[in-house]
Amino acid sequence: MRVLTKDILSAAEEGKAEVEVSGWVHRIRELGGVVFVILRDRSGLAQLVLQEKPDFSLESVIAVKGTPALNEKAPGGAEIRVKEIRVLSRAAGDLPFQVNGDVSKTGLEAILDNRVLSLRNPKIRSIFKVQATIVEAFAEYLRKADFTEIKTSKLTAGSTEGGTNLFEVEYFGHKVYLAQSPQLYKEAMVASGLERVFEIAPVYRAEKHDTPRHLNEYVSLDLEIGFIESEKELIELEKGLLAHIFDEVARKNGKDLEAWNASVPSALAAEKAPTVSYDDALKIVNDEAANSKTKGSGAVSRIFDINPEAERLLSDWSLREHGVDLVFVNRFPRRYRPFYTYPLDTENSGADGGAPVTLTMSFDAIFRGLEITSGSRRQHDYSAVLETLPKFGLKPENMAGYLAVLKYGCPPHGGFAIGLERLTQKILGLSSVKEASLFPRDRKRVEP
Amino acid sequence: MRVLTKDILSAAEEGKAEVEVSGWVHRIRELGGVVFVILRDRSGLAQLVLQEKPDFSLESVIAVKGTPALNEKAPGGAEIRVKEIRVLSRAAGDLPFQVNGDVSKTGLEAILDNRVLSLRNPKIRSIFKVQATIVEAFAEYLRKADFTEIKTSKLTAGSTEGGTNLFEVEYFGHKVYLAQSPQLYKEAMVASGLERVFEIAPVYRAEKHDTPRHLNEYVSLDLEIGFIESEKELIELEKGLLAHIFDEVARKNGKDLEAWNASVPSALAAEKAPTVSYDDALKIVNDEAANSKTKGSGAVSRIFDINPEAERLLSDWSLREHGVDLVFVNRFPRRYRPFYTYPLDTENSGADGGAPVTLTMSFDAIFRGLEITSGSRRQHDYSAVLETLPKFGLKPENMAGYLAVLKYGCPPHGGFAIGLERLTQKILGLSSVKEASLFPRDRKRVEP
Repeated sequence: MRVLTKDILSAAEEGKAEVEVSGWVHRIRELGGVVFVILRDRSGLAQLVLQEKPDFSLESVIAVKGTPALNEKAPGGAEIRVKEIRVLSRAAGDLPFQVNGDVSKTGLEAILDNRVLSLRNPKIRSIFKVQATIVEAFAEYLRKADFTEIKTSKLTAGSTEGGTNLFEVEYFGHKVYLAQSPQLYKEAMVASGLERVFEIAPVYRAEKHDTPRHLNEYVSLDLEIGFIESEKELIELEKGLLAHIFDEVARKNGKDLEAWNASVPSALAAEKAPTVSYDDALKIVNDEAANSKTKGSGAVSRIFDINPEAERLLSDWSLREHGVDLVFVNRFPRRYRPFYTYPLDTENSGADGGAPVTLTMSFDAIFRGLEITSGSRRQHDYSAVLETLPKFGLKPENMAGYLAVLKYGCPPHGGFAIGLERLTQKILGLSSVKEASLFPRDRKRVEP
Repeated sequence: MRVLTKDILSAAEEGKAEVEVSGWVHRIRELGGVVFVILRDRSGLAQLVLQEKPDFSLESVIAVKGTPALNEKAPGGAEIRVKEIRVLSRAAGDLPFQVNGDVSKTGLEAILDNRVLSLRNPKIRSIFKVQATIVEAFAEYLRKADFTEIKTSKLTAGSTEGGTNLFEVEYFGHKVYLAQSPQLYKEAMVASGLERVFEIAPVYRAEKHDTPRHLNEYVSLDLEIGFIESEKELIELEKGLLAHIFDEVARKNGKDLEAWNASVPSALAAEKAPTVSYDDALKIVNDEAANSKTKGSGAVSRIFDINPEAERLLSDWSLREHGVDLVFVNRFPRRYRPFYTYPLDTENSGADGGAPVTLTMSFDAIFRGLEITSGSRRQHDYSAVLETLPKFGLKPENMAGYLAVLKYGCPPHGGFAIGLERLTQKILGLSSVKEASLFPRDRKRVEP
């Protein structure tokens, strides 16, 4: 019976005469007359000691029988003195990617071009162990809060955001689109009486950006909840949710975090993340920019929006002033948010240069310099939505299902979404979000 | 602070002076001078007692304050004597679907045309409470067995099955396709060293069928596992997995099962499900057909394939002979299975009329007369796959990523997928799989 490499030490300590392990040939090293093979399986690495030259090359898959023995210098503190080897799959010798190498110097394109092999590198693979924990912890936290998991269609007849960034699908002779978000469906499910729903599923944005923060297909961790009064309840919910995710990653992925020299904020720190209004956020980032420029050189140009530079400056500010790299920005002006965002009664002061504008019960979460969440209370009043749609270029006749949700009794509600790859990226400190997608899709890449 | 309707009884027993509940107006009944309103929230129904006529109609959302009081005749054994009502959302009076009605006589088209309202019917909504449990139990069982959850792209450059049933997507000026399954990606992830992976995600089949067993978009519960020897290990895995799912549904969804007058097999029964070879299955179904026809009238026509009729006959046989409506059929002939299926050394006897044919390490699971799973050990030998591809009309040059998986060391492996909607359908005894999809997609339906 096969054991995992992580169990070899205890087998050696128990004095077992023979164990069987299987896995990939990670490294081969000859020293005097002895050959050391490092075997890799899902639990880690183990050293095999062979008396003769192996007839297989790196990345071959082998099954080995041998005697476990203590050896402080071997990975895990024990090794196997091999009695019998069976080659289950012989790898070709022209390996196009060095699986056992130090990937910190490998370029992103080489990693993605050789994706099915680069994923074998333990450090790269560890990204997706962390990602699996995020998905699990997200669902677990919400189920405990009485949320129901839903699965909604990714094919829609029209746009949900009024935007143009839609991928067109040929559907039995007519055009449909890949969903940009499950927004209208999750609202329908709140109003169905489930009240609290979440969905973990791909979403699609046909944006032409090719940046370290964009993917054309990503996994959206979505939730929606009924009977709330403002976005502040959503921010509190997200703090608790992120705190749980951070805790679980710290508990389950210690080795993976170590591989990336990364750490997660403590749950306590996450709970202390500040919330600043859009107006105040702009003041903070312009002050931060001015202060950092006076130390360096060059003119200070005013920041008029929460752009990527502003997100970085806000994070720096939050870390310095509140001890955590997580900050919530709320009360965005109307024009920056989708049609379904609930308006605030108050207007802003016109601080960003123009006349006062209507604000909204909306928020973003910025984690380590990157927006990872957008959320809001939604407009649940049927006539208010009917009035708003044309201003966003949307036609009521194309949204009959959604409008019926509001017309026939819909509680006040709101929600948000976390980008799974962005959260993974920022937890581990990856330089591009593409590294946090198993098979990323961008303008040029649809393979493998 | 709001409480749920399920908590009213204990509030009444504790003699609380006031509680607050919120939800949808499910029913209004006047009796003498008193008005009874049945309120619906995510936990169930509650009776409100009003002294005056309500100014809201069915499906409006209200928040209510009042005194809880024991009443054996009220749902849940208690009611609320209302002191104050706030209307949070006023429903229009022209409700196009009777939410509080008996839906057993409502046609499928009416249910789907009014989907956002039909989902409010507690019996219909209960389908998706069961479905959420299935998803949770699937993931939970596999995580305990050291599987890692993965999220792979749903946009692919080519077909994974060699078939034609692909939806075309316009992707920045060239054509890509919606994934028919995560097959090649999950194999890549086994070979990445994760060894055991699962994915819960939508898949797409551009089939023109419009039957009670087909959806053009469905959720596939997929898994793949390395270091197996035959499909028999997969069948054992699926038995344990289904047993766990059945147990969890029984434990968490008692009320939902009751609403559909449904029950799940016991875990013990699931573990006892028989496995029969394709050849034996054909003998069984032809015997069954002959026996049932002799009882009735009409000629007996021979069944040459495991078609829908054969699936029903096999289930009947299994229930009668083995006490469970679940049966596994293995060793399908080569021609019925995709290119990546691992061949058996043996041939069949030519029992289905022709010359002996090569068999495969493949299987289907049939539950209550419907195929819910297809699985197999996969071919992991690079040169064998290279040889096979052209026979299936596939071009090696279009599958470079996948072929690299096999070329550079891939363990023996296999896996299977369970159709989430089909399993939901069969657990509850729904007449169409479309009822088990929140927003089903078929040839005619892309809305809501």
